[in-house]
Amino acid sequence: MEVFEQHESAIRGYSRVYPVVFDTAENARQTDINGKQYIDFFAGAGVLNYGHNNPRMKQAMIHYLQSNGVTHSLDMASRAKGEFIQAFVDTVLKPRGMTHKLQFMGPTGTNSVEAALKIARRSTGRAEVVAFTKGFHGMTLGSLAATANTYFRNAAGVELANVTHLPFGCEKLCMGCNMGCGPAALDALGARYADPSSSFKPPAAFLVETIQAEGGVNVASKAWLQKLAALAHKVGALLIVDDIQVGCGRTGTFFSFDELGINPDVVCLAKGIGGMGTPMALNLVKPEHDKHWSPGEHTGTFRGQNLSFVAGREALRYYENSDLMNQVKHNAVLIREALEPLEKTLPNVQVRGKGMIVGLDVGNTDLSKAIVADCFEKGLIVASCGTGGRVLKVIPPLTIPEPDLRQGLSILVKCTQAALATTQGNAA
Amino acid sequence: MEVFEQHESAIRGYSRVYPVVFDTAENARQTDINGKQYIDFFAGAGVLNYGHNNPRMKQAMIHYLQSNGVTHSLDMASRAKGEFIQAFVDTVLKPRGMTHKLQFMGPTGTNSVEAALKIARRSTGRAEVVAFTKGFHGMTLGSLAATANTYFRNAAGVELANVTHLPFGCEKLCMGCNMGCGPAALDALGARYADPSSSFKPPAAFLVETIQAEGGVNVASKAWLQKLAALAHKVGALLIVDDIQVGCGRTGTFFSFDELGINPDVVCLAKGIGGMGTPMALNLVKPEHDKHWSPGEHTGTFRGQNLSFVAGREALRYYENSDLMNQVKHNAVLIREALEPLEKTLPNVQVRGKGMIVGLDVGNTDLSKAIVADCFEKGLIVASCGTGGRVLKVIPPLTIPEPDLRQGLSILVKCTQAALATTQGNAA
Amino acid sequence: MEVFEQHESAIRGYSRVYPVVFDTAENARQTDINGKQYIDFFAGAGVLNYGHNNPRMKQAMIHYLQSNGVTHSLDMASRAKGEFIQAFVDTVLKPRGMTHKLQFMGPTGTNSVEAALKIARRSTGRAEVVAFTKGFHGMTLGSLAATANTYFRNAAGVELANVTHLPFGCEKLCMGCNMGCGPAALDALGARYADPSSSFKPPAAFLVETIQAEGGVNVASKAWLQKLAALAHKVGALLIVDDIQVGCGRTGTFFSFDELGINPDVVCLAKGIGGMGTPMALNLVKPEHDKHWSPGEHTGTFRGQNLSFVAGREALRYYENSDLMNQVKHNAVLIREALEPLEKTLPNVQVRGKGMIVGLDVGNTDLSKAIVADCFEKGLIVASCGTGGRVLKVIPPLTIPEPDLRQGLSILVKCTQAALATTQGNAA
Amino acid sequence: MEVFEQHESAIRGYSRVYPVVFDTAENARQTDINGKQYIDFFAGAGVLNYGHNNPRMKQAMIHYLQSNGVTHSLDMASRAKGEFIQAFVDTVLKPRGMTHKLQFMGPTGTNSVEAALKIARRSTGRAEVVAFTKGFHGMTLGSLAATANTYFRNAAGVELANVTHLPFGCEKLCMGCNMGCGPAALDALGARYADPSSSFKPPAAFLVETIQAEGGVNVASKAWLQKLAALAHKVGALLIVDDIQVGCGRTGTFFSFDELGINPDVVCLAKGIGGMGTPMALNLVKPEHDKHWSPGEHTGTFRGQNLSFVAGREALRYYENSDLMNQVKHNAVLIREALEPLEKTLPNVQVRGKGMIVGLDVGNTDLSKAIVADCFEKGLIVASCGTGGRVLKVIPPLTIPEPDLRQGLSILVKCTQAALATTQGNAA
Repeated sequence: MEVFEQHESAIRGYSRVYPVVFDTAENARQTDINGKQYIDFFAGAGVLNYGHNNPRMKQAMIHYLQSNGVTHSLDMASRAKGEFIQAFVDTVLKPRGMTHKLQFMGPTGTNSVEAALKIARRSTGRAEVVAFTKGFHGMTLGSLAATANTYFRNAAGVELANVTHLPFGCEKLCMGCNMGCGPAALDALGARYADPSSSFKPPAAFLVETIQAEGGVNVASKAWLQKLAALAHKVGALLIVDDIQVGCGRTGTFFSFDELGINPDVVCLAKGIGGMGTPMALNLVKPEHDKHWSPGEHTGTFRGQNLSFVAGREALRYYENSDLMNQVKHNAVLIREALEPLEKTLPNVQVRGKGMIVGLDVGNTDLSKAIVADCFEKGLIVASCGTGGRVLKVIPPLTIPEPDLRQGLSILVKCTQAALATTQGNAA
Repeated sequence: MEVFEQHESAIRGYSRVYPVVFDTAENARQTDINGKQYIDFFAGAGVLNYGHNNPRMKQAMIHYLQSNGVTHSLDMASRAKGEFIQAFVDTVLKPRGMTHKLQFMGPTGTNSVEAALKIARRSTGRAEVVAFTKGFHGMTLGSLAATANTYFRNAAGVELANVTHLPFGCEKLCMGCNMGCGPAALDALGARYADPSSSFKPPAAFLVETIQAEGGVNVASKAWLQKLAALAHKVGALLIVDDIQVGCGRTGTFFSFDELGINPDVVCLAKGIGGMGTPMALNLVKPEHDKHWSPGEHTGTFRGQNLSFVAGREALRYYENSDLMNQVKHNAVLIREALEPLEKTLPNVQVRGKGMIVGLDVGNTDLSKAIVADCFEKGLIVASCGTGGRVLKVIPPLTIPEPDLRQGLSILVKCTQAALATTQGNAA
Repeated sequence: MEVFEQHESAIRGYSRVYPVVFDTAENARQTDINGKQYIDFFAGAGVLNYGHNNPRMKQAMIHYLQSNGVTHSLDMASRAKGEFIQAFVDTVLKPRGMTHKLQFMGPTGTNSVEAALKIARRSTGRAEVVAFTKGFHGMTLGSLAATANTYFRNAAGVELANVTHLPFGCEKLCMGCNMGCGPAALDALGARYADPSSSFKPPAAFLVETIQAEGGVNVASKAWLQKLAALAHKVGALLIVDDIQVGCGRTGTFFSFDELGINPDVVCLAKGIGGMGTPMALNLVKPEHDKHWSPGEHTGTFRGQNLSFVAGREALRYYENSDLMNQVKHNAVLIREALEPLEKTLPNVQVRGKGMIVGLDVGNTDLSKAIVADCFEKGLIVASCGTGGRVLKVIPPLTIPEPDLRQGLSILVKCTQAALATTQGNAA
Repeated sequence: MEVFEQHESAIRGYSRVYPVVFDTAENARQTDINGKQYIDFFAGAGVLNYGHNNPRMKQAMIHYLQSNGVTHSLDMASRAKGEFIQAFVDTVLKPRGMTHKLQFMGPTGTNSVEAALKIARRSTGRAEVVAFTKGFHGMTLGSLAATANTYFRNAAGVELANVTHLPFGCEKLCMGCNMGCGPAALDALGARYADPSSSFKPPAAFLVETIQAEGGVNVASKAWLQKLAALAHKVGALLIVDDIQVGCGRTGTFFSFDELGINPDVVCLAKGIGGMGTPMALNLVKPEHDKHWSPGEHTGTFRGQNLSFVAGREALRYYENSDLMNQVKHNAVLIREALEPLEKTLPNVQVRGKGMIVGLDVGNTDLSKAIVADCFEKGLIVASCGTGGRVLKVIPPLTIPEPDLRQGLSILVKCTQAALATTQGNAA
């Protein structure tokens, strides 16, 4: 670890939480340089949906390299990119009747959000965007303005303008939350837009996650989302779904919104879309908005990542049949069965989530930190999220073998019980 | 091409300029799906300094994949990352006596600039940043505010605040330029900072490229840069050098500023630093500024790209001896010898640059477009840059074989002469 | 009128609504150059609380002029200013136990709001301010940002930043309002301030009118105001009451908040404070905030208006006993008795207000315009306010003789009934 | 003084510099409550061009009050306002062939600048405005953004956006100034506007004082102003002349720009326009811009100050013949003859100005403070301005009797010599 401590920036975070040097990894297990194995309930922050070093993808990448395939191509046409696009259209868009255009940009989630905000502003001629409390959308100034967390916002050093945050419409309110979330807030908002003395004007877009992953695994209610979509439509604003962390199969369908009855104008994808953990970002933009772009107006050197196209194309094969999605639903049940008893037996514990993203809210930052550390000690990588990091986020690879999943859950449950017992002991 | 035209966003740019589907590539040659070869004077916008599919890097990546190395690790410690850091410290920093910390972020240039601006603002407590006319620093809102080009700025849809642009200090003024560039402007600026009635306050940072690549291959004069560095020091502002396009050996030294007598507080690196064209970004930050970061304040999912660490580590071997840098200097002479006669014999042509980045300014957008198209037809990929795209930018892989270089230059010269002859014919 | 139409700016407003040339005025009557008299229910937009050409004030001003009193003194000390300050302290502050400092500035309401916002931001080190839907605070950019009405905001031509608008807490919701007003919104707001993932941070100040005059005569509920004051105190924000239009006796007490159980940090006064309609503005600032000012940091050439001090000093004599305030309460009953039957007998009519500011909301802009015009024709000056100008605002001089008040009310009631009858006739 | 020290805000400024209570005043003399007389070289910060209690104006105001003239009328038509407008058109506009419309607003200089910026932004659809180093335009946020002085800007508490400051084009550079002032800067600016890679876009307006009064009595060169006017015209920006302090006869002509060969789109007037020191502000707006206003878009309660119209109408009689302007020119010679020897005999002294506004720059804040205090002790009111207040500003009433002028100059010269002698003594 010394080389990191001596030479890497003070900003490093995860290497403090998991203070080992990782070496190799396969599916849901990582191994450090001392040979110790860890079950991975973190999956690279939701990137590695198909596991570390997914054999099919790995093989495709090696083959591509061996045959001297073009690796880096900006937005020139390449064979690998063409095949990815075709597969995406055939596997994802056409079955849903979606005619969205594919826009590639700098291959990170924040770049995709920046591009989405630009096209929404361009298409509407409006500057203001509405995002939501606890939302997370990235670190560059445009998307940081849409990110709610003060810890990140404080790093900007400048005013973060042109985004207003409104309460998110949780299906299950976070423990202790009193922020006025829920559909009623949208009715009032609509009334304010309609009143020229309110100072509220319809925005360029509503930018929303169907499940706020970093925000604490807060699941939007279907009713609220539909009301939001209707309001957006009514006031001429775009509905942008940031599906970066919970898209690509995480919830049991390719898009997280597949069964929610909404039809977003723009969908932001990144993280899992590249398959192997190599970067890629992709926006889906309805043609009526996409036409407002001029060539090259939003560029990015690394927007043509052919290794990601190759692996991402392999990832799409998982959606040619329902096997993986069925597996996700099965695993979701296992996770729920393991964690929900904690909610029932322990005070100040709440379980939220959908599919293979589940949050275990222990209501307290210190407690959460202790559990993360204890799990890691016992061979489980799990990370925290939410306000003050008080929520443990369970997002294993979708492909995790059942024994690994059960073992990981067992560690998590035990560590949580132990930590809470200690707390209660201290309190008594 | 049909799949691109039907399904890709209207924003696509290079696939319109080079309307073929690329398939494979080796060093300085790309091949399209019909088998036609192109000499590459573009190098992925300055990324592919070591050529397409550099054999040593490619082999290292294949080996890494085959051994199930961790590919994606955020900012956890990994073996590949540790080896990259150590090599970077040993090869680059130590020989220069630099004690900068390494900060990894979302793996694109714009993310690195965003991070640099954040730390400058944090470290000084000031919001305003000074950048320069014709500068290019990225597309996300924070770096876009520092980018001077109106075409890109207009896509923001919001006010771009907190950056002031001042005239850049070219060593050779662009043809027809009358914008007040040069060291005298810095004297006046210093006087304004000193006068409390000027409304000018010292900025958080001066963000500068030593050679504005996208801006038209404008080379800063050494005297101006030194004066800028002195002014920054005097007023307590950071000097940030954006070395994204012209660092990593492009000018004949690892950093573009190695022989310029300045000592930047922050250096932004991306593009070439990952070696193979896979993404990576890296800021070098002096410890006295770096210490102001709190863990995880500026994150990015893809900041741990181990394939880039592996290839980037191979790239660093080029700097263990002076062979490649000597080759760059040799090639630079060849380029100059080919292009400078154009400047002397043709009106409205200017050659600018240093090392293996050379701009051929033909003074006119239409002319430049015609030359790019004609070159491509004749088997040469060259791109344009600068105001209205009137400058042809020659940035081949540093490793380009001499015959390819000579052949490419020959095409470029002939196409330029032909285009200018046509224009004159039309004018006559 | 010709000279106005030919030479005055297109921005002129009231001279279009009341298209005559006024000449003389006494108490609640104005006379035009043709000798036609009008009863004044407008009182110079709430300035002329003590009537036009109040004899005592007029005499004092003439005497001051005849004795060559200093008329213009910036913030130098003058005899007239000293006497005003002493009388204000003795008559207004001391009886209420208020220790606020008196700050004079450019003599208009908007200047007083600008100064209040500056001291709040200075004292807290925060930039953001919370104001309320339908609030009106002035036209200069700082106070315009706090003004909610889109018509005025659109004239700015720049982004109006650093103010967030929240729903106002009416005691009686405006007809058809569904904007989420009321105390519950403040609970949610407090919760958001407490949650670091909400993006909400405590503001520098809450800027509020106890009765939104221009906003449509919306009266804040006492419970809401007290909750707001408590929230401000809790989060370290200043409570600024803009008492410009409804202070100075308008509601039956000197301050509009005298009986509301709140203790503002800053009180903005203008309009009526100068007595005769000559300009003056005055902020009352608690010493703990006032001490953050440095000398001359917020200047204004006309902040020493001695004719206003002289007349304003006379105005304060009205508060040495309770006669005028009793008269206001008596008149308030007369106004209510005249207008409330309209609310009961006509659809889409609502009466709101307190003391001698009463709004007659007829729910419709065209209707309101027709009534204003008809009243004027019949010898009554009454103006409209609120969303789209749909509310007739009754704000006569507090000193209006009872016959004038009764006659004016009679005209207003008849014109309203006639206009509504016509509408219903048209609808039928 | 006690009442001021106890109850007035810490922001009070002039009452600290001149720590007496003023009582009466006539023409160029003020008398304090102890009967001590002071010659007035300050004239209420340039307001009292026609002297304190100008007999003709005073009489007209008394008569108006006695006849119950309407005193306060917003922008309703009134007899007094009509007569002022007619006289202004006949006396000022018509002889110059100006067809500008008259816009009245809140009666202070800052309100007039705010209105000017709004109409410039509306008329051009651009947000950015260019103002100049050392410029002073007011304290409300819109005009404060155009004010250059850091002391005032720091009081804003928010970012001051949408105004860029450029070096002012002095005819005589301030001692020690090296800020790059002069016509060459305008050439470079024009070149930047023309280059789409400069990030410079043509502004909505150039806002300029022909003589920066608060900024230190810096006189713009005629050549620079004409170049500025030409540039504004070329790039479609409005030329706004802020003539608030140096208009109304101060320089020997009604407008300060009468002999400068420019034709402003908007002229801001306040201070002297009301004649007696009662507030009034007035913008002159070319019809092609004025037509963009909608009724009431920029309001202000006190925009109909009839006492100011009455006195201001009397003031205009001074321009029916050339007596007063000849007197100004005569007085200007006297002032120059008195002060210029100081420039020649003393180091670090500079005299700048035109007509009856002259700055005596003593190069040093402490020195300037000492001179002001000594003058006051000896019966002369003179104020300081410029960077750090190092410039003594001589702006007596235009109507000052010659003996008073000579006596005041004598005091000023002696105090300056004494202060400088002391300094040199100290230095020796």
